[in-house]
Amino acid sequence: MPRQVDHAARLEAVEDAVVAIAADAGFDTVTIRAVAKHVGASTSVVTHYVGSREELLRNAVRRELDSRRAEADAATEGLDGQAALRAVVEWAVLSPTERSHRFWLALVLHTAGHPTLRGELNRFNRWWNQRIERLLREAGSADPDREADLISLFVDGIVVSGFDAGEPWTPERRTTLLDAVWATLSV
Amino acid sequence: MPRQVDHAARLEAVEDAVVAIAADAGFDTVTIRAVAKHVGASTSVVTHYVGSREELLRNAVRRELDSRRAEADAATEGLDGQAALRAVVEWAVLSPTERSHRFWLALVLHTAGHPTLRGELNRFNRWWNQRIERLLREAGSADPDREADLISLFVDGIVVSGFDAGEPWTPERRTTLLDAVWATLSV
Repeated sequence: MPRQVDHAARLEAVEDAVVAIAADAGFDTVTIRAVAKHVGASTSVVTHYVGSREELLRNAVRRELDSRRAEADAATEGLDGQAALRAVVEWAVLSPTERSHRFWLALVLHTAGHPTLRGELNRFNRWWNQRIERLLREAGSADPDREADLISLFVDGIVVSGFDAGEPWTPERRTTLLDAVWATLSV
Repeated sequence: MPRQVDHAARLEAVEDAVVAIAADAGFDTVTIRAVAKHVGASTSVVTHYVGSREELLRNAVRRELDSRRAEADAATEGLDGQAALRAVVEWAVLSPTERSHRFWLALVLHTAGHPTLRGELNRFNRWWNQRIERLLREAGSADPDREADLISLFVDGIVVSGFDAGEPWTPERRTTLLDAVWATLSV
């Protein structure tokens, strides 16, 4: 990294590298050394910006999940009730890139035995569940708990199905399935 | 491994080690060296049984997926149509261990850029899809393609949801959701 790059930009490049490496090869391969190599710097440059691998992982994961939250918020802006619910679910299954989905699955698989990452994923999931249950209530759902489970299951299933099949399902195929799941909701 | 252990048992121990390591830490961490360490033997013992890492991975994955197929077949034995369909889906979401699910997700995430593993997963998925579509037809489904997608999505979603939440959803919670998805099928 050239010397004139400022602190924030360097830190962002380091965190981007964490996300890229984790998405490509899993969290076990994210080391200070691998991150340094990815950004073209020495390990001492990386450790200048972060105190430990643990801190590096937590910050990078939080920033990534926060940016997914911001996208979901933007997708529902100006909407409420059923329209907002549909918009946030469509966002979740149609908008994120394959790399975002791959990063998220790598994270989900890696949290067992890693309290820091588990904590970050729980933080995101609490936000997601509260958001979905609130929208279900606003939309008049008769059973927000069960219907929130069904929506989570649908989103998780869509994310995995593309990797399972070797390529993402087409938007049309995802939308057809979303319509089928939607028809089961009491909204 | 003690000397008196026969060839088949040694090979099985080596393949078990592949599955265990992949489930715990992903396929990138499965090396001849890691497998040797796991079974308490030297790398030359492992390479005596398999010609290459690639062959080791393919054989271990095929054996593991074949044993899932055998379990699914056993679950539907003596049943047909709707009863067989329900039995195989219940098997998929209720029976495999957390480690089996973790292994399968690690495989799904690892097949991009790995044609051998992609081939093994495709082989399994072809079998699964044909089985589900045949049972849907036998059960009188009006739209076997779409309904097979919905079932795959449900199974994939259940597998991921447990890791996403940090612990497997209870059988009751899974069954409630299965009932909700089931109600959408035309069988």
